[in-house]
Amino acid sequence: MTKPDIRALLFDVFGTVVDWRASIVGEGLAMNRRLGIDVDWEVFADRWRGMYQPAMERVRTGERPWTILDVLHRESLDTLLPEFGLDHLDEPARDRLNRVWHRLRPWPDAAAGLARMKETRVIATCSNGNVSLVVNMARFSSLPWDMVLGAEVTRHYKPQPGAYLESARMLGLAPEQCCMVAAHNSDLVAAEALGLATAFVPRPTEYGPDQDFDLVAENDYTYVATDFIDLAEQLEG
Amino acid sequence: MTKPDIRALLFDVFGTVVDWRASIVGEGLAMNRRLGIDVDWEVFADRWRGMYQPAMERVRTGERPWTILDVLHRESLDTLLPEFGLDHLDEPARDRLNRVWHRLRPWPDAAAGLARMKETRVIATCSNGNVSLVVNMARFSSLPWDMVLGAEVTRHYKPQPGAYLESARMLGLAPEQCCMVAAHNSDLVAAEALGLATAFVPRPTEYGPDQDFDLVAENDYTYVATDFIDLAEQLEG
Repeated sequence: MTKPDIRALLFDVFGTVVDWRASIVGEGLAMNRRLGIDVDWEVFADRWRGMYQPAMERVRTGERPWTILDVLHRESLDTLLPEFGLDHLDEPARDRLNRVWHRLRPWPDAAAGLARMKETRVIATCSNGNVSLVVNMARFSSLPWDMVLGAEVTRHYKPQPGAYLESARMLGLAPEQCCMVAAHNSDLVAAEALGLATAFVPRPTEYGPDQDFDLVAENDYTYVATDFIDLAEQLEG
Repeated sequence: MTKPDIRALLFDVFGTVVDWRASIVGEGLAMNRRLGIDVDWEVFADRWRGMYQPAMERVRTGERPWTILDVLHRESLDTLLPEFGLDHLDEPARDRLNRVWHRLRPWPDAAAGLARMKETRVIATCSNGNVSLVVNMARFSSLPWDMVLGAEVTRHYKPQPGAYLESARMLGLAPEQCCMVAAHNSDLVAAEALGLATAFVPRPTEYGPDQDFDLVAENDYTYVATDFIDLAEQLEG
């Protein structure tokens, strides 16, 4: 089999590059100490993330006009705070908490793996996060993206085809010259159906210690790697 | 006077960051040697660049639908080649020559100045170049952009307001939190009218040794700097 001529790597971000759950829990526990409260931030993080797909789905279906993820996150947060006894948080505190998504920390192999992959390919995000979220996160966590693509610049939330195809087009590339990298089978299945190459990198604790899905590659992807360093090595090979 | 709270710097690219004229002449002279031809590449570069504003104007006015700069450059190139006795260039040669805009070289102070400004502010392009052009140039010339904004992601060619305002909005910032950096008075006048801060950095040989415009700041900009290092120092001050 000839190797695909991959010019660019498109990365899912939440879960694939950064550990959103541990990052939210970490900031939450600091809030517990600072405010003298006792919120279960693991439950909080899971509930918040659980509102993510339904919120985007209302945009995907056209039930509401284009809305960036910062706004969807904030609406979910405002719904969630009373359930955790945090309805007293004022506007600056809510805004700061909502921006925890701009301060997510990468998995240990991510930054080094990205730097290595960047030597030979364009590395761009293809995330449902909005531009400022991904740009601020990149600066906060030293992620060396060549470009932030995905939802906001294409106005399509994954897995809508436009999110992948318009991202490839903006790089001046055909779909098959791009490889979608994700820890989620559903993301890769959508990309593969559009002609992109695919790379699965499992993040088996993304949803905590009891995660029972996305533990293994469920399809015949172009690459299956243990982490970003392994993926970089396979791409060089 | 209180200093403006500038969170992001938006950079014009052609002429401000990179020396398009010398870059095109340099590649052209190499073509002369390789192909045994004798084209005057200074004249060629000026003629090619001279077709830039009229080509974008047809998009700005709506006379033609949204079209990226790579395509406009290529149309201008195809018009120009016969005038210089180069109508025999085949498709790969034309494509390669057209992509000289992806391989422009920075002014000597640009990369170091950008790296320094990036320490304290978001640095993004606000160029009429399309995404792949600016991304490929960044990789070719080691320009450490946080983000590529401007024409293609906003679908507005400068000086249309949307090119500036949508770029600021994607960074999650108000216009006054952004500073447009350019070697061109017209670009800064447009940005200033929309509420952005402005920084003029003269590039007095952008159009060659006889350049007689954009030599000095013609308005009361927020910053006037001799080069990117000077601008970085003023921003830190």
